[in-house]
Amino acid sequence: MKHVSEISMIAGDKPYASRTGDETLIQKRQDPVVFVEENSDTSADQDVALTSEQLESYRKNGFLMLDNVFTEEEISPLRRELNQMRTDPLLRRRPESFNYVDDELHSVFGVHKLNPLFGNVAKDTRLTSIARQILADDIYIHQSRLCYKPGFTSEKFFWHSDFETWHVEDGMPRMRALSISIALTESHEHNGPLMMIPGSHEFYIRCNGDTPKDHYKQALKQQEHGLPDTAVLSTLMYEGGIQSACGKPGSIVIMDCNTLHGNNGNITPDPRANLFVAYNAWSNQLETPNCEREPRPEYVAARKPGSPLA
Amino acid sequence: MKHVSEISMIAGDKPYASRTGDETLIQKRQDPVVFVEENSDTSADQDVALTSEQLESYRKNGFLMLDNVFTEEEISPLRRELNQMRTDPLLRRRPESFNYVDDELHSVFGVHKLNPLFGNVAKDTRLTSIARQILADDIYIHQSRLCYKPGFTSEKFFWHSDFETWHVEDGMPRMRALSISIALTESHEHNGPLMMIPGSHEFYIRCNGDTPKDHYKQALKQQEHGLPDTAVLSTLMYEGGIQSACGKPGSIVIMDCNTLHGNNGNITPDPRANLFVAYNAWSNQLETPNCEREPRPEYVAARKPGSPLA
Repeated sequence: MKHVSEISMIAGDKPYASRTGDETLIQKRQDPVVFVEENSDTSADQDVALTSEQLESYRKNGFLMLDNVFTEEEISPLRRELNQMRTDPLLRRRPESFNYVDDELHSVFGVHKLNPLFGNVAKDTRLTSIARQILADDIYIHQSRLCYKPGFTSEKFFWHSDFETWHVEDGMPRMRALSISIALTESHEHNGPLMMIPGSHEFYIRCNGDTPKDHYKQALKQQEHGLPDTAVLSTLMYEGGIQSACGKPGSIVIMDCNTLHGNNGNITPDPRANLFVAYNAWSNQLETPNCEREPRPEYVAARKPGSPLA
Repeated sequence: MKHVSEISMIAGDKPYASRTGDETLIQKRQDPVVFVEENSDTSADQDVALTSEQLESYRKNGFLMLDNVFTEEEISPLRRELNQMRTDPLLRRRPESFNYVDDELHSVFGVHKLNPLFGNVAKDTRLTSIARQILADDIYIHQSRLCYKPGFTSEKFFWHSDFETWHVEDGMPRMRALSISIALTESHEHNGPLMMIPGSHEFYIRCNGDTPKDHYKQALKQQEHGLPDTAVLSTLMYEGGIQSACGKPGSIVIMDCNTLHGNNGNITPDPRANLFVAYNAWSNQLETPNCEREPRPEYVAARKPGSPLA
């Protein structure tokens, strides 16, 4: 097994090119993980922002898990709302709704616009202050998604970097974005929790292959393009290991846009549900996609963010 | 969620009937878990047999995990042998070999007869003395199987009781059998370890449906008949929880024939391999299958065991 330092590193004027049909390659990240604001003034957020120890852990691992950010009193109405949405025929017919093969609800994109309860969470200052602190810029919501993994039947989802897709398919220029996942149910070791590779955010993996037309319609349920090479993945996992995001409802996972993650199937009775919100730096707005495809829909990747989040 | 005590229990002259097309039902086990020998004389095995605390734990949970039963010096030749078998064209063409869709080796049945190295392990007194002590009878090998779950690609396997299949498809009369699984690689929380439901062995679940012709050819890779109802499974898991069998190479899991178990997929780089040996009490030999099908092949279910293990 090679060490990461032995893997051929490349760079160039297009450091984040991928799916260009070439061999898989790995290179160092070309952007900071924790940004420092020019004319720094974070005093307004000091009550809720991360400590320097938390920031350092995030910078080192590419993620940070926090318990009890939302209370059970805040989360239980969201769970009820999700259960209503699962059987709402109007919602289920919308293009933002993705289904499993058996017609169970898989995910709802743009849920912060479709539903005021989830919209309020996505804009909650406990989350936005963290995103602003790490990205050191004004921010907007690049993507929101209500995710539901039923008990007994859920399938695994292979390792991937969100940024690889956001760069190639959405034209996000740089690694200056992050996601926050809010647990609506308990995640434990057996019900297919989010798994992350600590330290993997420091590397960018050029993937083989290309991007099929309307890739997102399938890829958001089961990705098959833009997947890292297994030899590279093995190296990163032997260096960094695997961390599961286990936590109670109301816990959150803050994850850098380039941290490699995936999850396993779920044969337990316990479904897993979470609200996923991707925040992008205002200065990092989408450009032309880096593939020969039309941009993905606005509800998957915001190209017209309006104004920054308050 | 109902408690197990609230679930309708049935019994009758065919207590272990299943796949009779009826509704799913749950009933109490009709056999001991740890048997007591008439004219007991276990002095010959006292060096290697289980302590009374270990026996009690097995009786209560339906399984027992033991570390360091085999040394790394004993296990590494078995791992090398497995890797040779994966690319042995003669072996791979035998009916005992089952493959994954991508042609990777899935499992080898009757491996204790096909390969002397694995045969020696299956007959090792560290294992046979345990089986004899718990079953309190002479024993023979009902089934042996070398199992290989590759890294990155393995799929999940749903909850099931081995006895349900052995009773219905093989005609095993009573719950007087157990399996011992010997780890050839490390099992950890992330690479799809065996998961068991503690206490589930005390109940028998009649499953819906029937048994298709040559069911075993598919079922041994991905079972779709003889699967317990999810409501019953939920009840048993909320009562007993889930226990993963994590352990180093050389560790073993002793499991009652009726303990509900399954496993998750594996997207880590770490393959999972084990030798599975099912021991049956000599007095519990196979009869006519309890379904309208021909008996399964001898290498899947021994009908002519010859003489008891020494």
